[in-house]
Amino acid sequence: MSKSVAVIMGSDSDLDTMRPCIARLKSFGIPVEVHIISAHRTPVAAERFASQAKEKGFGAIIAAAGKAAHLAGVLAAYTTLPVIGVPIKTSMMGGLDSLLSMVQMPKGIPVACVAVDGADNAAILAAQMLAISDDVLADRLAQFKAQMAAEVELKDQKIQKEEF
Amino acid sequence: MSKSVAVIMGSDSDLDTMRPCIARLKSFGIPVEVHIISAHRTPVAAERFASQAKEKGFGAIIAAAGKAAHLAGVLAAYTTLPVIGVPIKTSMMGGLDSLLSMVQMPKGIPVACVAVDGADNAAILAAQMLAISDDVLADRLAQFKAQMAAEVELKDQKIQKEEF
Amino acid sequence: MSKSVAVIMGSDSDLDTMRPCIARLKSFGIPVEVHIISAHRTPVAAERFASQAKEKGFGAIIAAAGKAAHLAGVLAAYTTLPVIGVPIKTSMMGGLDSLLSMVQMPKGIPVACVAVDGADNAAILAAQMLAISDDVLADRLAQFKAQMAAEVELKDQKIQKEEF
Amino acid sequence: MSKSVAVIMGSDSDLDTMRPCIARLKSFGIPVEVHIISAHRTPVAAERFASQAKEKGFGAIIAAAGKAAHLAGVLAAYTTLPVIGVPIKTSMMGGLDSLLSMVQMPKGIPVACVAVDGADNAAILAAQMLAISDDVLADRLAQFKAQMAAEVELKDQKIQKEEF
Amino acid sequence: MSKSVAVIMGSDSDLDTMRPCIARLKSFGIPVEVHIISAHRTPVAAERFASQAKEKGFGAIIAAAGKAAHLAGVLAAYTTLPVIGVPIKTSMMGGLDSLLSMVQMPKGIPVACVAVDGADNAAILAAQMLAISDDVLADRLAQFKAQMAAEVELKDQKIQKEEF
Amino acid sequence: MSKSVAVIMGSDSDLDTMRPCIARLKSFGIPVEVHIISAHRTPVAAERFASQAKEKGFGAIIAAAGKAAHLAGVLAAYTTLPVIGVPIKTSMMGGLDSLLSMVQMPKGIPVACVAVDGADNAAILAAQMLAISDDVLADRLAQFKAQMAAEVELKDQKIQKEEF
Amino acid sequence: MSKSVAVIMGSDSDLDTMRPCIARLKSFGIPVEVHIISAHRTPVAAERFASQAKEKGFGAIIAAAGKAAHLAGVLAAYTTLPVIGVPIKTSMMGGLDSLLSMVQMPKGIPVACVAVDGADNAAILAAQMLAISDDVLADRLAQFKAQMAAEVELKDQKIQKEEF
Amino acid sequence: MSKSVAVIMGSDSDLDTMRPCIARLKSFGIPVEVHIISAHRTPVAAERFASQAKEKGFGAIIAAAGKAAHLAGVLAAYTTLPVIGVPIKTSMMGGLDSLLSMVQMPKGIPVACVAVDGADNAAILAAQMLAISDDVLADRLAQFKAQMAAEVELKDQKIQKEEF
Repeated sequence: MSKSVAVIMGSDSDLDTMRPCIARLKSFGIPVEVHIISAHRTPVAAERFASQAKEKGFGAIIAAAGKAAHLAGVLAAYTTLPVIGVPIKTSMMGGLDSLLSMVQMPKGIPVACVAVDGADNAAILAAQMLAISDDVLADRLAQFKAQMAAEVELKDQKIQKEEF
Repeated sequence: MSKSVAVIMGSDSDLDTMRPCIARLKSFGIPVEVHIISAHRTPVAAERFASQAKEKGFGAIIAAAGKAAHLAGVLAAYTTLPVIGVPIKTSMMGGLDSLLSMVQMPKGIPVACVAVDGADNAAILAAQMLAISDDVLADRLAQFKAQMAAEVELKDQKIQKEEF
Repeated sequence: MSKSVAVIMGSDSDLDTMRPCIARLKSFGIPVEVHIISAHRTPVAAERFASQAKEKGFGAIIAAAGKAAHLAGVLAAYTTLPVIGVPIKTSMMGGLDSLLSMVQMPKGIPVACVAVDGADNAAILAAQMLAISDDVLADRLAQFKAQMAAEVELKDQKIQKEEF
Repeated sequence: MSKSVAVIMGSDSDLDTMRPCIARLKSFGIPVEVHIISAHRTPVAAERFASQAKEKGFGAIIAAAGKAAHLAGVLAAYTTLPVIGVPIKTSMMGGLDSLLSMVQMPKGIPVACVAVDGADNAAILAAQMLAISDDVLADRLAQFKAQMAAEVELKDQKIQKEEF
Repeated sequence: MSKSVAVIMGSDSDLDTMRPCIARLKSFGIPVEVHIISAHRTPVAAERFASQAKEKGFGAIIAAAGKAAHLAGVLAAYTTLPVIGVPIKTSMMGGLDSLLSMVQMPKGIPVACVAVDGADNAAILAAQMLAISDDVLADRLAQFKAQMAAEVELKDQKIQKEEF
Repeated sequence: MSKSVAVIMGSDSDLDTMRPCIARLKSFGIPVEVHIISAHRTPVAAERFASQAKEKGFGAIIAAAGKAAHLAGVLAAYTTLPVIGVPIKTSMMGGLDSLLSMVQMPKGIPVACVAVDGADNAAILAAQMLAISDDVLADRLAQFKAQMAAEVELKDQKIQKEEF
Repeated sequence: MSKSVAVIMGSDSDLDTMRPCIARLKSFGIPVEVHIISAHRTPVAAERFASQAKEKGFGAIIAAAGKAAHLAGVLAAYTTLPVIGVPIKTSMMGGLDSLLSMVQMPKGIPVACVAVDGADNAAILAAQMLAISDDVLADRLAQFKAQMAAEVELKDQKIQKEEF
Repeated sequence: MSKSVAVIMGSDSDLDTMRPCIARLKSFGIPVEVHIISAHRTPVAAERFASQAKEKGFGAIIAAAGKAAHLAGVLAAYTTLPVIGVPIKTSMMGGLDSLLSMVQMPKGIPVACVAVDGADNAAILAAQMLAISDDVLADRLAQFKAQMAAEVELKDQKIQKEEF
């Protein structure tokens, strides 16, 4: 069976944004564990979770946070697992604060940043990481990719019938 | 005697930017302790320092860091002392990444942010905090303010003599 | 008894944003005085208030303003008390104008800037400043911090019961 | 004789940027007075100057400042004379901090903002203001405009001779 | 009688934003002429209007436009009258495109830029320009300033009665 | 023979940036005419050139300008020829002012904007436009594309020999 | 008969934004073909379409996409036809991500970028390109331009009757 | 033996920025293959490489590019391997164009973005991905992390000896 993926949110207000992430991971058959952990309000929980994540069988961690979004970086500081960051949209230039706080990590401790509110892509990226050594999962990703292409092609065919 | 102030830098490359901060604190007679602690590379040291800072007699912490500048926020997570953040200039829009990563702290854990590379002002702000209950220090701040005004007035007088 | 904190707003339209600030200060038992003072429309009132704030028993000043948000800087020019700036959200890049006008103070006159619309954090920061020399207040801050952590942990426990 | 124009700088480090402004005003025959006044370090001088500027015979004020550039706004708060703001270039996004701090003035107290480092244009704008009721000055402006056009046309003719 | 002021808009969709400008000018007793002229769609009308504005008795021109907001600059190219630019808010970073297109004028042809959507301030600025040589208007501006201050002071008194 | 292309610069200081544009057009065998015309300092020359460009045998116009870069838009206002804009790099966020002033044209008058300092691409784009009805030029473009690919492939082969 | 223009969208969610583009092209009598092709989800379709576009009789390609908007660039990589990019508005700074991803093309492969959501202008620009060698279309563009001017003049006349 | 990692650059001018990435991968014992492939100038090579990368034994792809940086996205379109993007610094806001073009990928095709010029972190992230199923590599990462911490601690000890 595949390794599991942790989905950590800095606040329960991020849950609706992250539901597609959880659903996508499950659709690939990846076991998921969801947590509310704040880098600033529960830093000890963040440290504890990240320090133990590898030995608990997680293969990757997805962390979603907004504004001065330190969650992904704080988790990455305590583990050698890949940490994927999802910057949450804010009213500050559409989430540029979240994005820069996540992606501009200093040398030595990377975060794999996806688009602002890119919950779905975070799940796909986690699956791609696990699939490096999991051929069944790699096949599911290939099927998923083919299906996406088919859906776009269908839309293209449909638009040919429209009268402009 | 006044409480002491800690000046924490994320990297020794920030030292030259922070020297005026250390010098200014000393000029006010405030005891200073300087540390290199990285939020990401030595997170345990960050936690340890911040957790013990109050009982060790610090009155305020100044934290300088650049890019995804989590240092001030990470320290603030482990203490109730006021934490002053100095965003370090970067090549990403002149340090906007550092600034947003420091100032946009989520509800509950504030950081007192000064200007990008605002090392001197961080020292003055720390002195102002300590001076709330320290009249000697308050007097020194008043003198410092008067002296700054006098210097500007001198420059104004000098420019009157220039031929344009 | 603790020193008091002044909450100054540039316009009464900022009041709703600042109510959590006033409420948080009161919850810590800190006496609060609220004023509408405009740096540009009532500059004399700004000067008078700031010049007298220290002798009137204030320990810190919180100033909220938007756009070319000079209020905090103008007050800081006339006092040695620490001035906390709350940049108010605008339609110009989510308040980047307010933020830069507050945080980018030139050398010599610092403003302790919090996040855009960070009213609650401004109150906590003011409390942290007063608590440097006030052990009762310091204890309240520690309790507040513990309570925040407990609330996040409760949310984490609750989310474990959700079916995804 | 024409009314005079005051050129106020927040710091003597702005002088080199502002020399073309002073020279341009003089070339139009406008009397100029130059001052170093800091909105934050010498706020009383700023208030005094602006309050008395009209009765002292000034027709317009040019104010140059950088970062959280409050100088123009602070002067405008104390006078009904038009205040022209010159945002000084900084390392924060090329002076966006200076620009927004000057141009985004709240309702009631305008500042006439020119380009970042737009010292020359500030002088021309001041001359245009004085020329509303000064036909001699208006003629000089018309001649200046014609001369600028002639210079560009000369450059265009010259480039026709270049071999590419 | 005072010189008149032209209020030019690039599109009739800007009219609602500019109504306070027209009303404010009228409240000062300044004759106003309003036009819809597009720098790009009716460039000949723009040239004609600006070229003749001075001799038709206008003292200043206010130009409002959005996006690549060339209107103020195009008018300024054809006149020596002061041109005040009002950048109209857009969905591109809250109007940063309009602001930069107006304020960043090259050397030789200034535009007096006010805040994004700063219609009211454009009128006050125009009045300040005309008042350089019009004492009646200068008195009205002084009264207006005093009234604004009184309104803010009233709001401050009112907020003292509020229970927080 | 191919139609000619006009390369217009707002200032002779833009010439070095635009030399590769002129050279590239010539390498495609396209006749080029180069002018210094300022939208603001020689607006009449801009109008005259653009109004007559089509009948003079130009197929496209390339306009380079910086800051509040109105040149391309002003030319486009007077012609139905396609106008290609080259925003010149400035110290304001690397030329974001030039870019937004060029690309954000209002409805009805398009400008075909290329990258900041994208002189070479402006020439290629002009050639692509002319090649719509010019098979010889289309062939040259295809060869140019093939040659670019070959150069990249050569570099790829060369890097295979490097010892890392 | 005129060459045809392809309007390619990265997603069917862009269709409403692009309808004015399709309508405008049709109003000029230009044959239009509309496709949904994703640079990322159907890259093979993108390659196939662009590679064959010239021989299928297209004169220009219009590509609309949002966020990391690679569509226009990917199509341009496979054709020598001019490719016009329409950056779609997003919540990231009003579409600055789409704009920069489209306009900042590296040397050798230009994209002709119009304003964010500039669907109508993309059609006019395409028409201008085809009109280089199509006098009937050039006449239609001249009429369209005259009609736009007439509409603005009508609005100007109408506003003269309004009571302010 | 570990799977290999491909390091793809859009231009050989990116090589110096990417050398630390290649060196870091080698220091972990990961086989590296380096290529110059341009998304726009050699799109067929990009397609070919990405389509075959998985069967050729690559575990992850690192792609570095600047400006409208499509390379990572284009590669990701043709493979299910994780693609790590390194946005290269440019003069446009310090590389914000490169960053947004890489990170803001639409739904379905993620790119794992690191900091601007974050070559070293890209290598560490790739190693973290491979280490999910490679315990030897995981141990090397843990040692690397410990060594980084030790280096920072040494610097902290050294700074204690400095006289301020």
